[in-house]
Amino acid sequence: MKTHIYKTRVRYCDIDGMKVVYYANYLKYFEAARTELLREEGYTYKRLEDEGFLLPVSESHINYKKPAYYDDELTVYVTFGFIKNASCKIKYTVKNQNDDIVCTGHTIHPVVSTNWEIIRIPDQIRPIIEKYLE
Amino acid sequence: MKTHIYKTRVRYCDIDGMKVVYYANYLKYFEAARTELLREEGYTYKRLEDEGFLLPVSESHINYKKPAYYDDELTVYVTFGFIKNASCKIKYTVKNQNDDIVCTGHTIHPVVSTNWEIIRIPDQIRPIIEKYLE
Amino acid sequence: MKTHIYKTRVRYCDIDGMKVVYYANYLKYFEAARTELLREEGYTYKRLEDEGFLLPVSESHINYKKPAYYDDELTVYVTFGFIKNASCKIKYTVKNQNDDIVCTGHTIHPVVSTNWEIIRIPDQIRPIIEKYLE
Amino acid sequence: MKTHIYKTRVRYCDIDGMKVVYYANYLKYFEAARTELLREEGYTYKRLEDEGFLLPVSESHINYKKPAYYDDELTVYVTFGFIKNASCKIKYTVKNQNDDIVCTGHTIHPVVSTNWEIIRIPDQIRPIIEKYLE
Repeated sequence: MKTHIYKTRVRYCDIDGMKVVYYANYLKYFEAARTELLREEGYTYKRLEDEGFLLPVSESHINYKKPAYYDDELTVYVTFGFIKNASCKIKYTVKNQNDDIVCTGHTIHPVVSTNWEIIRIPDQIRPIIEKYLE
Repeated sequence: MKTHIYKTRVRYCDIDGMKVVYYANYLKYFEAARTELLREEGYTYKRLEDEGFLLPVSESHINYKKPAYYDDELTVYVTFGFIKNASCKIKYTVKNQNDDIVCTGHTIHPVVSTNWEIIRIPDQIRPIIEKYLE
Repeated sequence: MKTHIYKTRVRYCDIDGMKVVYYANYLKYFEAARTELLREEGYTYKRLEDEGFLLPVSESHINYKKPAYYDDELTVYVTFGFIKNASCKIKYTVKNQNDDIVCTGHTIHPVVSTNWEIIRIPDQIRPIIEKYLE
Repeated sequence: MKTHIYKTRVRYCDIDGMKVVYYANYLKYFEAARTELLREEGYTYKRLEDEGFLLPVSESHINYKKPAYYDDELTVYVTFGFIKNASCKIKYTVKNQNDDIVCTGHTIHPVVSTNWEIIRIPDQIRPIIEKYLE
């Protein structure tokens, strides 16, 4: 099983008055991480959209373990938790430059057409997901 | 049991390319809603901080049911799911102007001192939480 | 000349590690303020879009005078600086609860069709703009 | 004169309902770009802060030329416009992957101590700024 690795730097715009990453912003890192996973596999989310597929989010979950601070270099590890007919679960672990776990989380994504009807996961991305399946 | 009601309008900065609220931004609405609950009860989160208490987030969870669109008027209903010695769980339901459920979710908050040591929920806010306890 | 008044509260998600509003977020307050000006005059930006008009931004400018802090109650005062054939300039002054000026700024907006061609300011909103013209 | 080059990818969280980068988010790209300029020169903004210097923003300005779209790869070119006793001006040009200018802009930064008193630009970073001075 493959794990995708995405690195990002904590910016001033990401932190709040406690000088730690604002709790919503990990969902932005998750988005960037899963987008780059697809790109690494020769696909882009943009192309998926152009082909008529949207991957909205039906569930998000984060367990915050340790704060991440300004200028920390974070690594997001991405795998897939399940793949069903019309949805999949993506799992994330965020670590800082000292290899401490900052948070873990997941998102669940149904596949919908451009008019928001639920459809099967397109054949083009099913093998990609299976490569990263836990 | 009391329910706190917080209203907000969906702005351009909240939506994404699908013209719906970006999935992370509900956590911003949750923050505003729980802050206003405290204020309505004669307390402010700012005052809590000034008194040496921080309420970081140890868990967040959202189930997205229906997209919210630009200019929608959203209502966030806030209650408490549990109160323990040193943490509490806040529950949220977001509805649009047609009374459709947009999403439900929760956050769990430990209470920590300004040097991030876990401490008991301060007596000043315990009765407030109990009023909203499901 | 009329001035539109929009009030907003500084949230945790708005501030950065200096515990003051992050410099980009005033542009979000500006957006909310000009949107509510239109609504007060019986029009909505959403309706404008539905009628085929977009108001992108061709210029933004902010002079930051004094930091705004967490939980400050800010008031944004909105007027128009000019109206031309196909564009208009909106001016903003942000004050805190002590009536200190936090920042001043402006945005310039061309009017474009849904395929981004520059067009005349629609007759429906010209009289609204003139009411707020300095 | 040196020009710093910073590359970033447009994310879903950056775009709005027009499917283009929301106008405030360029200020986030500017922040990342000037931070990385410092790092490339062997300094970090974090270290400056640790040494007691803050660089808030007293002015920001953007001229938007062409929309940037989801998944565009943007390049931010950074130089300095002036250096004075206690402030400096940073200039930015953002281009897309086709080398079109997306926007140009600048920020002005006074140097302040941790209690927000204006002070001289520290000697450690003056030579860095001069290297990038137009």
